[in-house]
Amino acid sequence: MPLLTLLTDFGLADYYVGAVKGTLLRLAPGVEIVDLTHEVPAGDIEEGAWLLAAAVPSFPAGTVHLAVVDPGVGSDRRMLAVAAADQLFVAPDNGLLTPFLDRGEARWIDRPDLYLATAGNTFHGRDRFAPVAAALLRGEALAALGPLASTTVRLPHTAPQRTPQELVGRVVHIDRFGNLVTDLPSDWLPPGPAVEAAIGAHRARRYADHYAALPIGEPAILPGSAGTLELASNGESLAALWRVGRGAEVRVLLRPHG
Amino acid sequence: MPLLTLLTDFGLADYYVGAVKGTLLRLAPGVEIVDLTHEVPAGDIEEGAWLLAAAVPSFPAGTVHLAVVDPGVGSDRRMLAVAAADQLFVAPDNGLLTPFLDRGEARWIDRPDLYLATAGNTFHGRDRFAPVAAALLRGEALAALGPLASTTVRLPHTAPQRTPQELVGRVVHIDRFGNLVTDLPSDWLPPGPAVEAAIGAHRARRYADHYAALPIGEPAILPGSAGTLELASNGESLAALWRVGRGAEVRVLLRPHG
Amino acid sequence: MPLLTLLTDFGLADYYVGAVKGTLLRLAPGVEIVDLTHEVPAGDIEEGAWLLAAAVPSFPAGTVHLAVVDPGVGSDRRMLAVAAADQLFVAPDNGLLTPFLDRGEARWIDRPDLYLATAGNTFHGRDRFAPVAAALLRGEALAALGPLASTTVRLPHTAPQRTPQELVGRVVHIDRFGNLVTDLPSDWLPPGPAVEAAIGAHRARRYADHYAALPIGEPAILPGSAGTLELASNGESLAALWRVGRGAEVRVLLRPHG
Repeated sequence: MPLLTLLTDFGLADYYVGAVKGTLLRLAPGVEIVDLTHEVPAGDIEEGAWLLAAAVPSFPAGTVHLAVVDPGVGSDRRMLAVAAADQLFVAPDNGLLTPFLDRGEARWIDRPDLYLATAGNTFHGRDRFAPVAAALLRGEALAALGPLASTTVRLPHTAPQRTPQELVGRVVHIDRFGNLVTDLPSDWLPPGPAVEAAIGAHRARRYADHYAALPIGEPAILPGSAGTLELASNGESLAALWRVGRGAEVRVLLRPHG
Repeated sequence: MPLLTLLTDFGLADYYVGAVKGTLLRLAPGVEIVDLTHEVPAGDIEEGAWLLAAAVPSFPAGTVHLAVVDPGVGSDRRMLAVAAADQLFVAPDNGLLTPFLDRGEARWIDRPDLYLATAGNTFHGRDRFAPVAAALLRGEALAALGPLASTTVRLPHTAPQRTPQELVGRVVHIDRFGNLVTDLPSDWLPPGPAVEAAIGAHRARRYADHYAALPIGEPAILPGSAGTLELASNGESLAALWRVGRGAEVRVLLRPHG
Repeated sequence: MPLLTLLTDFGLADYYVGAVKGTLLRLAPGVEIVDLTHEVPAGDIEEGAWLLAAAVPSFPAGTVHLAVVDPGVGSDRRMLAVAAADQLFVAPDNGLLTPFLDRGEARWIDRPDLYLATAGNTFHGRDRFAPVAAALLRGEALAALGPLASTTVRLPHTAPQRTPQELVGRVVHIDRFGNLVTDLPSDWLPPGPAVEAAIGAHRARRYADHYAALPIGEPAILPGSAGTLELASNGESLAALWRVGRGAEVRVLLRPHG
């Protein structure tokens, strides 16, 4: 049986994650469940989408990824099942799967026969998404879940820009260590000293390929683990130091070697 | 082998959860362990009991639920094994299993042959409960664990009340999103506009069946995922907004359709 | 297939733990992964080492323990694989495995053929440690991972002292409940009333063998679950009450029975 991963904004202090897992294990006995995270900020679809896209490439082909950040639960928002990048995804149609929508086949889930008849209409993670994911784990075909989905909801996207003099992107994630992860592909920046990154009035004037290479107290730009550039300071949170949040514009000046 | 779930107040930053799991996997190799939560506030038996009762119905028959919120560890408090609702439970006899005690068979655990000979008397989760749960997972009969338990410890309980004009209950849980979960069964309230819920001077004057149906800033009453009514406000924590905690009295006025 | 445990300072809100697990499950399908903790404070090797050493004895022989608290990732710090205490360990050579280095065989990992060719040099947990741990899980011999390691990095260690009148040690861990765990072996202290523990000007004048035996508000000394003495106060955090942190000196006065 394939693996299942779980990403939610349920937190770990409530009964929600346990109820979803119990349902999965009841309907797909023997499945191995891997938590991606349950600490997506409540309702933060953009953060959920980024984390999911960053983790997915590490998983074996055929893994089922169940993602539930679902402020519209119970409304007329639709539910999606997607096959893309050799993986399967089940999630609300609210932008959470944006990074995968152009890379495979998307279906609107329409299988009331699978949904649980339980109390209320506020917990589709347990009552609808988990049974549908369990069906995929048991071998149900994607095409049997519902019609092809064409007009899916997508997160707004601002593509990073490059010129010979400058790269312009934004902070798309702040990690556990306070590093500022950008959407600028690392291979846009040739390694070397001829670089300066700016966020507002803040400057990082060094390039390094790992954190310990940074002089203490001197921010730098590095190629990060998700394939994009990040700004970091050795042993401290650059996000806290600079008071920079997600969405901030990042400019990288490419200084020609003199 | 059946599943095992784990609910504790150990938190996730310490070695306690790991030590319990290692013991279980050493004594019952191959068991699949599901975390319900380890974030029960330290020593909060009432919260642990509510979370356990909310999660259990999702699990397959025969699941073993190990619950350790145990401020009396090492004292003369007894240990319980219970078979109820097609599930098995192992926990201290301190009220944690209250919701299940009238629904099956309870035994006082008395199996010193199973307990680990380890240092100290402060970690029965690892040294006594885990080996007993492992014995159940290996097929040991409930009756072999000890004598029938009749005078078990129970949490105090205030039953919700109903009249044709009013429902009176209390807040029994505050969830991750700040929603106020009550002990009032959802089916006591006919859907419709003729409703008003009050906690102290606060009022919720709407009924909805999902969060996104609520106008922003207007609290409402909904049928929640645990089978009881809850009060919520779309996209914000009603618990924070109203400064309401667990135990607060909730009155629902049933206004006749005019 | 043996178990694998995972201990990191990645936290649970990021994609890092998920990416490591995905890699392990891709390269060692079917492995059961147990989280020890991911809440080691960022870069806190000493805390990671203590937690690992406390949890490991509960696990079955042959378990592979992957520990990644790695502020020097990408630098010339080396990577270790260790067989000790019937267990296997994979970790950076930065002191994290100190408690096990004198109890078995250590090898410096040198297997570029196993490492993943991925972006950047900042996430060896995913790109190097996980593939090496997966190789061990698949049956690779320790000796095949690299040369014998002799001059490994070790944490500084201050051994606890004892005289007939006094024990002198330090606080090595503060647990979830605010209990102060020391490095003084419990069997250095004969049970009984003739004891007084001091941290600075604070005093604990009782001995107990479990928390509930302590009078409310009266700190005491107990034999803890890790085999060493701890100081605690019933139902409250002694660490917060006394404002004591890790590293504080603890003196236990052995008062002769009068």
